[in-house]
Amino acid sequence: MKDHGAGGTLEQGAADLVVGVDLGGTNTSVGIVDDSGRELLHSKFPTRPRENAAEFVARLAGVIHELLRRLAPGSTLRGIGIASPAANGLRGTIESPANLGWGTVNIMEMVRQHFAIPVAITNDANAALMGEQMFGVARGMKNVIMITLGTGLGAGIAVDGKLLQGENGSAGEFGHMTLEPQGRACGCGRRGCVETYVSAPGVRRTVHELLANRLEESPLRSVSFNDLSAETVSRLAGDGDPIALEALTITGMHLGRLVANLAAAFDPEAVVLYGGLVNAGDFLVGPARRAFEQNAMQAHRGKLRILVSSLNNGEAAVLGAGCLVRDLLAGVEVT
Amino acid sequence: MKDHGAGGTLEQGAADLVVGVDLGGTNTSVGIVDDSGRELLHSKFPTRPRENAAEFVARLAGVIHELLRRLAPGSTLRGIGIASPAANGLRGTIESPANLGWGTVNIMEMVRQHFAIPVAITNDANAALMGEQMFGVARGMKNVIMITLGTGLGAGIAVDGKLLQGENGSAGEFGHMTLEPQGRACGCGRRGCVETYVSAPGVRRTVHELLANRLEESPLRSVSFNDLSAETVSRLAGDGDPIALEALTITGMHLGRLVANLAAAFDPEAVVLYGGLVNAGDFLVGPARRAFEQNAMQAHRGKLRILVSSLNNGEAAVLGAGCLVRDLLAGVEVT
Repeated sequence: MKDHGAGGTLEQGAADLVVGVDLGGTNTSVGIVDDSGRELLHSKFPTRPRENAAEFVARLAGVIHELLRRLAPGSTLRGIGIASPAANGLRGTIESPANLGWGTVNIMEMVRQHFAIPVAITNDANAALMGEQMFGVARGMKNVIMITLGTGLGAGIAVDGKLLQGENGSAGEFGHMTLEPQGRACGCGRRGCVETYVSAPGVRRTVHELLANRLEESPLRSVSFNDLSAETVSRLAGDGDPIALEALTITGMHLGRLVANLAAAFDPEAVVLYGGLVNAGDFLVGPARRAFEQNAMQAHRGKLRILVSSLNNGEAAVLGAGCLVRDLLAGVEVT
Repeated sequence: MKDHGAGGTLEQGAADLVVGVDLGGTNTSVGIVDDSGRELLHSKFPTRPRENAAEFVARLAGVIHELLRRLAPGSTLRGIGIASPAANGLRGTIESPANLGWGTVNIMEMVRQHFAIPVAITNDANAALMGEQMFGVARGMKNVIMITLGTGLGAGIAVDGKLLQGENGSAGEFGHMTLEPQGRACGCGRRGCVETYVSAPGVRRTVHELLANRLEESPLRSVSFNDLSAETVSRLAGDGDPIALEALTITGMHLGRLVANLAAAFDPEAVVLYGGLVNAGDFLVGPARRAFEQNAMQAHRGKLRILVSSLNNGEAAVLGAGCLVRDLLAGVEVT
């Protein structure tokens, strides 16, 4: 499986292809990626949290087969790379993902029952980091941190061009560093974790704290906790709503302080922000950059760059998952 | 310079030797280290903060010559390794050390004016980490963090067996991560840095906060701020003094929380504590271990070990500096 196909088939419109999968708590994205990293075809479908893993994998296989049918004849599928939260790349498993009731499943084996080709899996933030390093704003960077802001706060870390995995493969849990020792209850059982403030649900909690503490009228007073999305908060911030603006400013401030601490610890060239919450744009990223400049060590101010993913939402992890399995096929050590 | 001497001279008591230097803000330690990592001779002298760098290097050269005179004839000095705060191993410089009025000096060149042999320099915490990995409690560990607790809080980080340097060689500045955004003023110009709480001066500041807030009598009420040392606090804690005990407990609690955050970020096998403040022993390390267990993510509790340096105080950095220059002599990439 190690040869990368002949030029001849490429000229006929066929190609040496891999599939990248970004398995999210809400949606799953699938891309067919050629050997230059170009995404030829893309599909997105809901993940259905109540489905079991076998049912999900059967649907995923159906989507992949459907995409393959639309490709030029002669194209060869070489491998499948999967990006997922709670992924253990060493074991090929997804281990008790927070937003799916799967427990621990060997997703690598399950996918291989549908496709007898190499399958690789990694953490979604690591995949997004690889995608940005290959094709996005982190191109060519060797010391760079990816922060994914969605349902939680995830991270991928590159040190000297290699992924930092840690002793047990669980480095980069910045979302569970403690921001406030007596702070908000976290799903992990502790209190005051960074992601209880800096994530889409964190924004929702901050909005509700502001609704309790302040008096301004706001359309946010007519939305229930469960119905409030980060998208709504971003939209209202665009309309000038003071509560929405303040919630995103506070979130950005915590994010900027986190980045200042990470700069002291890792001394990276840049930090890349990625994920649904980043759609809040400058309402979030502006305050984050300001808080970073106010809180960083002298050595990092004006130097370390806080960048926003330049790839379409979801694409960095799909492309990174594709890179992952290509590295596996090329015999590069994949961990 | 790459051959490591003949066995014959070793049998006559002579040897293939390097010098390790631990250049501290208060004292400088010098060791003559043989190729098995054994320290044959040791000397310690005050650093004299008001002296300039050339005067200091002349005194250092005198001490090294004095030690060499006491060695068996036929011994060959192969190189000199230096551990120092504010060291830039890439440039061979010490850059505006906080406790010495030197500005930026090329210490590597200055030492080579006295000894025409290879000289290598690194951060003191990195040297201590290398010493512990070679000869101490971190022997064989690939993912491990060294925290040095003295006048400041320094750190060395090993990831997959390699030192994590960062983009500009300044990773591991955990002492300047922010603990309390509106907290104590720090020498770096910001507020609430970890080392304003977790360091020897941090203990002194906590003692004075307790003296202000509480009513207990204590011998600490008869010592001025400037006269109070961390050693005095440790000794009084041993006598059961409630203020001293509480100050070390609070310091340990902050340290344990820091380690819990570092565990989330780096996922190391162990964290090694080193430096003068660690002489407070269980008065400090006990609360640190308890705070770690209370604050760490489930995955790290009961697993990550908080270890205390097993080498004599100062020796880890001397031995590590010796390893550094031996690596240089052996042609191993030294950064």
